[in-house]
Amino acid sequence: MTTNSSPQIWLYDTTLRDGTQCEGLSVSIEDKLRIAKRLDQLGIPFIEGGWPGANPKDVQFFWQLQEDPLKQSEIVAFCSTRRPHTVAAAEPMLQAILTAGSRWVTIFGKSWDLHVTESLKTTLEENLAMIRDTIEYFRSHGRRVIYDAEHWFDGYKHNRDYALQTLEAAIAAGAEWLVLCDTNGGTLPHEVSESVQTVICQKLMTKDGGQKTIPQIGIHTHNDCDMAVANALAAVMAGATMVQGTINGYGERCGNANLCSLIPNLQLKMGYSCIGEHQLTQLTEASRFVSEVVNLAPDEHAPFVGRSAFAHKGGVHVSAVERNPLTYEHIQPEQVGNRRRIVISEQSGLSNVLAKARTFGIELDKQTPQARQILQRLKQLESQGYQFEAAEASFALLMYEALGARQEFFEVKGFQVHCDLVEGKEASSALATVKVAVNGQNILEAAEGNGPVAALDTALRKALVNFYPQLASFELTDYKVRILDGHAGTAAKTRALVESGNGYQRWTTIGVSTNILAASYQAVVEGLEYGLLLHSQAEAALKT
Amino acid sequence: MTTNSSPQIWLYDTTLRDGTQCEGLSVSIEDKLRIAKRLDQLGIPFIEGGWPGANPKDVQFFWQLQEDPLKQSEIVAFCSTRRPHTVAAAEPMLQAILTAGSRWVTIFGKSWDLHVTESLKTTLEENLAMIRDTIEYFRSHGRRVIYDAEHWFDGYKHNRDYALQTLEAAIAAGAEWLVLCDTNGGTLPHEVSESVQTVICQKLMTKDGGQKTIPQIGIHTHNDCDMAVANALAAVMAGATMVQGTINGYGERCGNANLCSLIPNLQLKMGYSCIGEHQLTQLTEASRFVSEVVNLAPDEHAPFVGRSAFAHKGGVHVSAVERNPLTYEHIQPEQVGNRRRIVISEQSGLSNVLAKARTFGIELDKQTPQARQILQRLKQLESQGYQFEAAEASFALLMYEALGARQEFFEVKGFQVHCDLVEGKEASSALATVKVAVNGQNILEAAEGNGPVAALDTALRKALVNFYPQLASFELTDYKVRILDGHAGTAAKTRALVESGNGYQRWTTIGVSTNILAASYQAVVEGLEYGLLLHSQAEAALKT
Repeated sequence: MTTNSSPQIWLYDTTLRDGTQCEGLSVSIEDKLRIAKRLDQLGIPFIEGGWPGANPKDVQFFWQLQEDPLKQSEIVAFCSTRRPHTVAAAEPMLQAILTAGSRWVTIFGKSWDLHVTESLKTTLEENLAMIRDTIEYFRSHGRRVIYDAEHWFDGYKHNRDYALQTLEAAIAAGAEWLVLCDTNGGTLPHEVSESVQTVICQKLMTKDGGQKTIPQIGIHTHNDCDMAVANALAAVMAGATMVQGTINGYGERCGNANLCSLIPNLQLKMGYSCIGEHQLTQLTEASRFVSEVVNLAPDEHAPFVGRSAFAHKGGVHVSAVERNPLTYEHIQPEQVGNRRRIVISEQSGLSNVLAKARTFGIELDKQTPQARQILQRLKQLESQGYQFEAAEASFALLMYEALGARQEFFEVKGFQVHCDLVEGKEASSALATVKVAVNGQNILEAAEGNGPVAALDTALRKALVNFYPQLASFELTDYKVRILDGHAGTAAKTRALVESGNGYQRWTTIGVSTNILAASYQAVVEGLEYGLLLHSQAEAALKT
Repeated sequence: MTTNSSPQIWLYDTTLRDGTQCEGLSVSIEDKLRIAKRLDQLGIPFIEGGWPGANPKDVQFFWQLQEDPLKQSEIVAFCSTRRPHTVAAAEPMLQAILTAGSRWVTIFGKSWDLHVTESLKTTLEENLAMIRDTIEYFRSHGRRVIYDAEHWFDGYKHNRDYALQTLEAAIAAGAEWLVLCDTNGGTLPHEVSESVQTVICQKLMTKDGGQKTIPQIGIHTHNDCDMAVANALAAVMAGATMVQGTINGYGERCGNANLCSLIPNLQLKMGYSCIGEHQLTQLTEASRFVSEVVNLAPDEHAPFVGRSAFAHKGGVHVSAVERNPLTYEHIQPEQVGNRRRIVISEQSGLSNVLAKARTFGIELDKQTPQARQILQRLKQLESQGYQFEAAEASFALLMYEALGARQEFFEVKGFQVHCDLVEGKEASSALATVKVAVNGQNILEAAEGNGPVAALDTALRKALVNFYPQLASFELTDYKVRILDGHAGTAAKTRALVESGNGYQRWTTIGVSTNILAASYQAVVEGLEYGLLLHSQAEAALKT
């Protein structure tokens, strides 16, 4: 248990920058905004948003956050030191960072002499000047600076004196944090420990008369030796107070330190304070949310947050764990928002359902028969491949249905799709026909589209808009498809997620089928239905 | 580099026993035999084969190994101590172990008082007798004994004196190894370190007159805190000389310590001797072999052996790593049998393209006009939403095309798809028609499927298999779909990735279109084409 007196470790998330270097991961600006908001809710103090200037997407991302800022977290812009033999004020790259408008800026510079001469092709002296100038420039514009010492541990191993000089340059220029980076991921915990201790013990860490702010130490690790999390913990034990990492350990090559492992280790095992206890119970959901948004299959065996992390197989084991969870569980799964799973007979997650219902303003308790009914339906659907973590609107519809309160706006009778593609012709046509009933009246509509799902969506809207003119303001803002059992190839089950919006709210719905069109269509239909529900709830609220 | 003078660490593989507890993993006897042989080749000294008696499959496995024994490795039978208040010689469970015929036996017993009273429901005294009796029984039958101290670290934390007594019982009875197990996986490296040191420093570790064999210490860890590998290394640094783990870290919940990470860390980073240098270069292949046999997708981001472990993005980065690999690689990938991969992506420069071409055996230089042509085509396709970092086979086809060397196996003339879904009816039917030409001959084929892509795939194979019988061995092993510009909703562009295999190789192809079916189809078609290309290259190689 953490208390107010637990020493604080500052979390620094770089999912949106270093995490996006992960092979196979790509995100839109919308995706980045959704993830940033979720990290904000999770209580991560620093969120590295990207490198505006190097990447046009990141410029827009920072602008959008100026319009609609995060509640608690500091969004941080990331940038290298100025180029050799230039003037910081004249560097467009640095201008772009100022324009991004974040209070905090992370500057990374070279610690390893080899990189200065081989990659930057400049002198060791000039590199020190680059670090100093860049940090001073941002300080003079009122920014607070975190200094990332790239390749710190390799530099320290090869030329310790020079590596320490780079930190001195950063301190002199006014950096508030020095983050030691194991950029190549080749360092082991005992080496991290020794190096962090040395940095902290060096006189450069002692006050020189009370004028200068004494920077704190951070750690940034990669998983190339399977040591990212262990190295970060070793650094903390040696005195580091900031830990950089990514959700689910996403990152280049073998990934970055996984915050989903770091946070519970620091907070539950080592007694540090990172995020609120209640926020910690959202960790599993946050992990799955991010994996849905970036469209990568979650690691079922992930420590703490994986689906198998608290799975127990039959026999003695199960009865022992039910009598005394301590016998086979190193923490209580609920502390990180995960749950115990008895692999033979699935165990209840009734409290999850109740908690979820509460988020939709529905008060249920364990005695309500519908609560068990919802749980059963949920389990049944989940075994079919549904996953409601990122599809809360579909889950809400499911709850209303169980409570007998699902409004019927329309009924879908069926659909047909026809696609025709002639090789070499760019435009393939898709034709969709839908049949729906509204208030007992059957409507048949057809539409064309540049793809089968677009054609279906258009046909459905044509059929419904006369009854529900508010449909005109709905738009589909995102659409994702994932194949569930990859082994089955194209005959596998498909999960479609559709995000819809009405200009001021957004919601996500889900469909599952072996037929990719049926799955998509189901999600589109529920998206429209939920939008109509929100509209009618808003109207009802206005009347009262 | 390890030399004969490097201290030896004894590897103990439990993939075939603890590894098979992994959710989603199941193996036949044949699978187990194939894996055991591969581990033998890899030079693993101890291979835990299973628990004969508890599992009928394991009985047969040990019998088959008696017929056809391993070359170097010791196969080890695993078993618990006798039940409370029984006589070892009268226990059928222990008889089955003798029948299995292995020279070495691993006996696991309880170290944690809570488990003795809660799970075994017996007295602390009786548990000590169970450990002693069982080991003595096997010793009296000429077996050599490894003692696994289950729940060691929890027992040590809760009742240190009793935990140490259980080890004393094992030593007195003649165990040659004491393996400290973190069964629940909740321990951190500094705790492992302290506990191992204590055990080694205890007087029970000192000679009592030269009569008794002094056991050595082993470590068995689980990954529930993301610490399995770090904990094993911490134990080794504290004096343990045996490390237990599994290939790819397979195991219950979050898995066991991953030998594919442990071995290179111990051998390349810490200077211990585990397996031969040449065997180490087979590590990546062994990892992938085991994942194929157990039919689990390999972790692309796995340290050392993952496909992304030595992947490089971005121009400057790539030219730096080619000039001096040390700058961005913590070891040489070849040391573990992996290879550097130049990832082709948005940031690609000409040097990436050239490096990539080389990996396909195509020598280009900066002056070759086709090199620039490939780069241009690449950038053009990427701006349309193609992404080749995960679709190397499509990139290879693109290169062959630019070089005028793309073989035409077949030509697709067009396709049609028809889907019909009646709401409430579970099975939706999809009908696909394709028209292809092979050697100037047109073929029209139709097929049904449980989804439109499956129907297309089936129709295409029907059309081609008479010309290319090798198609019958191709399978689609994974299929992923991603919507590119989420803003456009269902009218957005779709990117499909298809992974195909022929039993010993895998390759990935890509398709992009606003029509999800056209994108999928394109990837399926290129997947078949690339498979045919591999086949014809293999045939050509055989002829020369």
